[in-house]
Amino acid sequence: MFYHDNELQYEVEVEEPDPQFAKMLQEGIGGIEGEMRVALQYMFQAFGTPKSKAKYRNMLMSTAMEEFGHIEMYATAISKNLEGAPQSIIDEIADGNPLISMMMESGQPRQALSAGLHGLATDANGVPFNGNYVIASGNLAADMYANIAAEATGRLLATRLYEMTDDEGMKDMLAYLIARDTMHQNQWHAVLEELGETLPVPASFPQEKEHEEYSYQFMSTFREQREDPQERWTQGTSIDGEGEFSYGFQPGGGTAIVEEVIEEMHNEATKAGGANDDESIDDQSESS
Amino acid sequence: MFYHDNELQYEVEVEEPDPQFAKMLQEGIGGIEGEMRVALQYMFQAFGTPKSKAKYRNMLMSTAMEEFGHIEMYATAISKNLEGAPQSIIDEIADGNPLISMMMESGQPRQALSAGLHGLATDANGVPFNGNYVIASGNLAADMYANIAAEATGRLLATRLYEMTDDEGMKDMLAYLIARDTMHQNQWHAVLEELGETLPVPASFPQEKEHEEYSYQFMSTFREQREDPQERWTQGTSIDGEGEFSYGFQPGGGTAIVEEVIEEMHNEATKAGGANDDESIDDQSESS
Amino acid sequence: MFYHDNELQYEVEVEEPDPQFAKMLQEGIGGIEGEMRVALQYMFQAFGTPKSKAKYRNMLMSTAMEEFGHIEMYATAISKNLEGAPQSIIDEIADGNPLISMMMESGQPRQALSAGLHGLATDANGVPFNGNYVIASGNLAADMYANIAAEATGRLLATRLYEMTDDEGMKDMLAYLIARDTMHQNQWHAVLEELGETLPVPASFPQEKEHEEYSYQFMSTFREQREDPQERWTQGTSIDGEGEFSYGFQPGGGTAIVEEVIEEMHNEATKAGGANDDESIDDQSESS
Amino acid sequence: MFYHDNELQYEVEVEEPDPQFAKMLQEGIGGIEGEMRVALQYMFQAFGTPKSKAKYRNMLMSTAMEEFGHIEMYATAISKNLEGAPQSIIDEIADGNPLISMMMESGQPRQALSAGLHGLATDANGVPFNGNYVIASGNLAADMYANIAAEATGRLLATRLYEMTDDEGMKDMLAYLIARDTMHQNQWHAVLEELGETLPVPASFPQEKEHEEYSYQFMSTFREQREDPQERWTQGTSIDGEGEFSYGFQPGGGTAIVEEVIEEMHNEATKAGGANDDESIDDQSESS
Amino acid sequence: MFYHDNELQYEVEVEEPDPQFAKMLQEGIGGIEGEMRVALQYMFQAFGTPKSKAKYRNMLMSTAMEEFGHIEMYATAISKNLEGAPQSIIDEIADGNPLISMMMESGQPRQALSAGLHGLATDANGVPFNGNYVIASGNLAADMYANIAAEATGRLLATRLYEMTDDEGMKDMLAYLIARDTMHQNQWHAVLEELGETLPVPASFPQEKEHEEYSYQFMSTFREQREDPQERWTQGTSIDGEGEFSYGFQPGGGTAIVEEVIEEMHNEATKAGGANDDESIDDQSESS
Amino acid sequence: MFYHDNELQYEVEVEEPDPQFAKMLQEGIGGIEGEMRVALQYMFQAFGTPKSKAKYRNMLMSTAMEEFGHIEMYATAISKNLEGAPQSIIDEIADGNPLISMMMESGQPRQALSAGLHGLATDANGVPFNGNYVIASGNLAADMYANIAAEATGRLLATRLYEMTDDEGMKDMLAYLIARDTMHQNQWHAVLEELGETLPVPASFPQEKEHEEYSYQFMSTFREQREDPQERWTQGTSIDGEGEFSYGFQPGGGTAIVEEVIEEMHNEATKAGGANDDESIDDQSESS
Repeated sequence: MFYHDNELQYEVEVEEPDPQFAKMLQEGIGGIEGEMRVALQYMFQAFGTPKSKAKYRNMLMSTAMEEFGHIEMYATAISKNLEGAPQSIIDEIADGNPLISMMMESGQPRQALSAGLHGLATDANGVPFNGNYVIASGNLAADMYANIAAEATGRLLATRLYEMTDDEGMKDMLAYLIARDTMHQNQWHAVLEELGETLPVPASFPQEKEHEEYSYQFMSTFREQREDPQERWTQGTSIDGEGEFSYGFQPGGGTAIVEEVIEEMHNEATKAGGANDDESIDDQSESS
Repeated sequence: MFYHDNELQYEVEVEEPDPQFAKMLQEGIGGIEGEMRVALQYMFQAFGTPKSKAKYRNMLMSTAMEEFGHIEMYATAISKNLEGAPQSIIDEIADGNPLISMMMESGQPRQALSAGLHGLATDANGVPFNGNYVIASGNLAADMYANIAAEATGRLLATRLYEMTDDEGMKDMLAYLIARDTMHQNQWHAVLEELGETLPVPASFPQEKEHEEYSYQFMSTFREQREDPQERWTQGTSIDGEGEFSYGFQPGGGTAIVEEVIEEMHNEATKAGGANDDESIDDQSESS
Repeated sequence: MFYHDNELQYEVEVEEPDPQFAKMLQEGIGGIEGEMRVALQYMFQAFGTPKSKAKYRNMLMSTAMEEFGHIEMYATAISKNLEGAPQSIIDEIADGNPLISMMMESGQPRQALSAGLHGLATDANGVPFNGNYVIASGNLAADMYANIAAEATGRLLATRLYEMTDDEGMKDMLAYLIARDTMHQNQWHAVLEELGETLPVPASFPQEKEHEEYSYQFMSTFREQREDPQERWTQGTSIDGEGEFSYGFQPGGGTAIVEEVIEEMHNEATKAGGANDDESIDDQSESS
Repeated sequence: MFYHDNELQYEVEVEEPDPQFAKMLQEGIGGIEGEMRVALQYMFQAFGTPKSKAKYRNMLMSTAMEEFGHIEMYATAISKNLEGAPQSIIDEIADGNPLISMMMESGQPRQALSAGLHGLATDANGVPFNGNYVIASGNLAADMYANIAAEATGRLLATRLYEMTDDEGMKDMLAYLIARDTMHQNQWHAVLEELGETLPVPASFPQEKEHEEYSYQFMSTFREQREDPQERWTQGTSIDGEGEFSYGFQPGGGTAIVEEVIEEMHNEATKAGGANDDESIDDQSESS
Repeated sequence: MFYHDNELQYEVEVEEPDPQFAKMLQEGIGGIEGEMRVALQYMFQAFGTPKSKAKYRNMLMSTAMEEFGHIEMYATAISKNLEGAPQSIIDEIADGNPLISMMMESGQPRQALSAGLHGLATDANGVPFNGNYVIASGNLAADMYANIAAEATGRLLATRLYEMTDDEGMKDMLAYLIARDTMHQNQWHAVLEELGETLPVPASFPQEKEHEEYSYQFMSTFREQREDPQERWTQGTSIDGEGEFSYGFQPGGGTAIVEEVIEEMHNEATKAGGANDDESIDDQSESS
Repeated sequence: MFYHDNELQYEVEVEEPDPQFAKMLQEGIGGIEGEMRVALQYMFQAFGTPKSKAKYRNMLMSTAMEEFGHIEMYATAISKNLEGAPQSIIDEIADGNPLISMMMESGQPRQALSAGLHGLATDANGVPFNGNYVIASGNLAADMYANIAAEATGRLLATRLYEMTDDEGMKDMLAYLIARDTMHQNQWHAVLEELGETLPVPASFPQEKEHEEYSYQFMSTFREQREDPQERWTQGTSIDGEGEFSYGFQPGGGTAIVEEVIEEMHNEATKAGGANDDESIDDQSESS
């Protein structure tokens, strides 16, 4: 179960409020690279971790709680960026509240209309968080890769936000969050290192059941069949050490064209009931 | 630009149609682990790959095309599973079409109602594919991790589908798709190996700008502060080789509580305008 | 503005309640082919129809109101199908409420959990209605084609539902709704006939501004260039009477590969900053 | 910031696993009446509560944390219901895993396919949680009503789930959750009582600015104007004590029909450019 | 069934068109606080109201129809705000259509691109209306609280829009809509008053079946257990009159950690099949 | 299966980059009128076309491939519009990157934050592509109408984009895409011409089973019953040649009010269990 206190995990200061930057910060809350996704993802992964792997559950839940703290930091940053308007705008607008004027131009007007100048559970485009972003597959290795991907795109997001602001307070907060994303990338990699042989995920499926002749072949789909480019992924030992990379083309296998379905579906287009049908059509040729 | 022919990439046969399994196969099309996601993901990643990295564009686009071929295979498999009903059901139902009876019980009735017994652009729960599943971040390393995650959960899905059917045709098709997921996991790892130093993603952000004291510290959030469990992620050299893992707790930094916003937001709850406000409230204590 | 009375537009009777059929009926409410879509679509189209075309506004709004009446009919039908369980199930279940047992197996459990055994604003897969289904383009011809498409798929849905039930009450209701879809298809076609020259939509764009050499050519994308199949869409006068159909292939035009973006995006994957870049890569060849 | 420990908030036991009931329990996690919604809703409300109202922030955050604990309970309950199959099914199925057979029939196959037999961030229909369910308006009174509504529908959901199971463990867990919903309904009402005069929300908007002649009138929209039914909402003092209820009809005000838009929108349907337009159309009559 | 005429429910005039305000007005149509939600919500509630409560059905349907009239008003207001550009912009732009220029900067470009300068079924962020916003639970008391919440946030939205415009026409329309929201809040409260004892919702569930020791206790989740703050919600008689508020902490109940699932799920991360498992792990401690 | 090469289908040049126009172009990718929808729609239609209609499969798949080429063109155009900022903006901004400044003001910030200045799988409002936009009904005639509607709104979109830019490169690209939309509208009409008698869709449903007295009657829903306006859709032969248009009103049929549901749903609002119920209520009158 869960607890809280009233401190932020790390200080959040805004020197000059900037409603446009508030909009950008939303990606850090509700975006697919955002903190709601990782907080809930690690939490659901923890929920499904069995007793025999309890130490991973503990670790996942700690980082889930940490990420909820990041949501709180982003939400606080958004509120502080919406508490006022930049001096340049204030000077420009003779009367009326410059904040309102800025919200009118913002791409995220619901921060004002629906939340009274606070954060929302949406991304920077204004799109609500989606529960299907949460990956908790039940397989720890698959989950670790999903977590690395989430932290890689999450740190990328934070560095882009860092480049977009000149506010020292915001840069300080983002420098902290970037550091944590550094840790979390390392952390999920460390789990994989400890787990050992996990490739190909899921490792428990016996590879002899798969069609192994296709397991390490790069398939080129260029229209004109090209020569092997002799890249890391077309020759040499495979990364999982179980095979040799090779180069080839799609094998092909039988026609893609299906049978008719039952009449009750009313798939028949015409009254005549198939006068246009031509059973003799050579489905391999466009021309007759 | 793009081309096609009329062959399937690999043979798709169904020995005994099974409408319930058709529903499961939808996850392979429109699920977050499915083929629409990877086909479009690799395609959008290829779209954004610049000239200086053209060989990666070529590789990504080839695998995108291959994945579109997998959508075609799954869609064909769904249609074939919906072309009839299992003999056991046919025997059971005295009159009426047993397929219709099975669709009535299915969790995916739109395969009949909206598609005339064919596949849909949805997942196994019936939820439509969502464009935000597509990760194409512009950073090749971040994208590779997203691709590994997609293929890891994708192969996991395929192995689960494999366990759920006894149909030899379906097992054969899935054995092929599982093999391809083996290759693609290896392929994206091979790119990372070739790229070299990519951690922490994005590698181009100068680490001295992040708050490095937090870059390699595992933060425990257990309510009662526990001792260092001495795990791979709390001590020793970090995976990226740039630091030493350590163990600690959330630093904390200032109150999380925000200021009032402008009056025009009408955030004030009462007519009296704040009679209940108590500026002296100690926001650090619940009790007065 | 709008009014109502307490009669249904047409009688809704259910002889033997069938919770599974209630699930199917949801497609008629919240599906992309359903009544919420057409009711709101015609209403929004009416909202945007200008004074000079007021008679079309009147017609659109009448049919919008009629479609709201169909939502009411479907919702009533769902409630009546959920008011009890089929006798066969009642006999089978010794104790407990058979309805609850059926809802447990249904693919639409929210009819019980969220609506207390009534209809929802979802489709038959349980997916909520989506405002983007509503097409009201501002161009009457485009809207009429969208309406014909909605009624064609809507009537198809109703006929499939008709085939899936043996209940005389339900068949009677659906026979009415199918008839109305017949009328509405005819109605939207009648508007197009009256409008006259609307092709290609939008007719007001001067065709000499488009690249007319591509305006009537069928482009084959078969991998191996095939001969003209001499179909209605590859030769003869075009349907709009403005050109001659022809047969050809994608013209092609320059490389698809883009430039680098600004550094602040951190798209660079490696620390070395491009050691893997190879400006000399021939982007037209996969092999070196 | 946030903390956790490894105990459940309240015991979760399942006597006989029931995969179908697992599906129903999803509504308690990701449904609009579910725990994700209230946990995040109270958390976002707390984020936006200003210093002068810090005691409400404390209260909201405590209940947010409690609700996260309920997500954990529901997720644990789902996993336990998926850990096996009912004895009746096990007896029935000669070979193969009965759990797999049950998942095939379930309306929520992604519990197996995507989560390896654990909970998802979706509702009982399989639809993912949506960030727009979270109401945090910035106005404490509006938020309290949103919270009461959430807890009223949430307790209703829990009582329906209670009726749908005979499992003593599940009934015990639900009896606890129902009790907590009792408390939370009382809690939000208590805040409203303490706040005092909050109606109409938002109370800070000066009522003399609204068109007060319409502020307390029930508008009947029956097609035939009916007599005042003399109900509580058509006569007597209004609930907010500021007016007298009355009974009337929609006032009506000018035509609903709009002007033409600019040519660049290509709203014109025909080539002739308006030959069908009839500026003299009496937009008030359907017949000419 | 339903009827219409060509008058607006109340006059809609725009003195100076303002495309940015048009964007804001979208929240009034397709937002979760908007008119589509309440119109459909009251309509679906009416659909499910049984004969014994027919007078509530009548009332709900009247207000549903009134709300459809509000959609029409908002849509008309949007069209009128998009019929031109503010004089200040017209002066600024030497050539080209200033409206197009404004739409390019708008956060809601689909008003032009998809609707030809008319309203959409989306909110102010551009997100489409979602059928799951519609609450019609089947329990009249629960529904009344949902309606009060919808009208409270709806009136809050309208007052915020009122503050954001200086246009006298828009202020007049909003002053009418604000008045109606005043009435509707009172109306739903009046129903609750008339119903009498409805708390806790649903009142029909026998409270002795819930775990009553937790029914009136405020649970603090502060990390450090604090003293009772002696607030309205921690002492005194509960609002429903059935209990006494008290103050306490989460009871806790057994471990949150689950069992392994069946092998067919391939949840096992490693080839070795559990070499990393440590059944002896003390799941209550992070450190070994 | 599928193939590609590295050329664009048609040249994409941008003379002066324009980030705002990049945002608009997104509608061409992920909008309901966009290229993802038609590419996937034609592809899924092809997947479901049976052997007897193989020539239509060939045609649909060719045009699907062509449309994927249009996605590539739009994505390239977006990247090129985001590669720089207009000279006017560059002049204005003293320091800092003007592109970043423009992205801050854009309504589509995720082009920078999530995609590193490339295209997304979203529409111009930033809303992700939705798999339910894909219509593939199984009935060729219904699908052709859906395709005509998609191409009509698609060409309308392209002409609106054409009017919104002065960039010669963009106008050239759009002039090509508009021409292709001309072809595709003609192409789908040509299929319908060839099919022959398809109205009403689905033509295979025997019209004598529908309630034919309502099959050709325009139903007016004006509150006051008006006279027949004598329009094309109220008199004369129907478009399908099977009936005569007529003019009438909604027939009406029985009360819309439903029965009570089972107790286990807890739909009862009060403790007293129905004290407010009034079985004698005349559900046809609002007044008592």
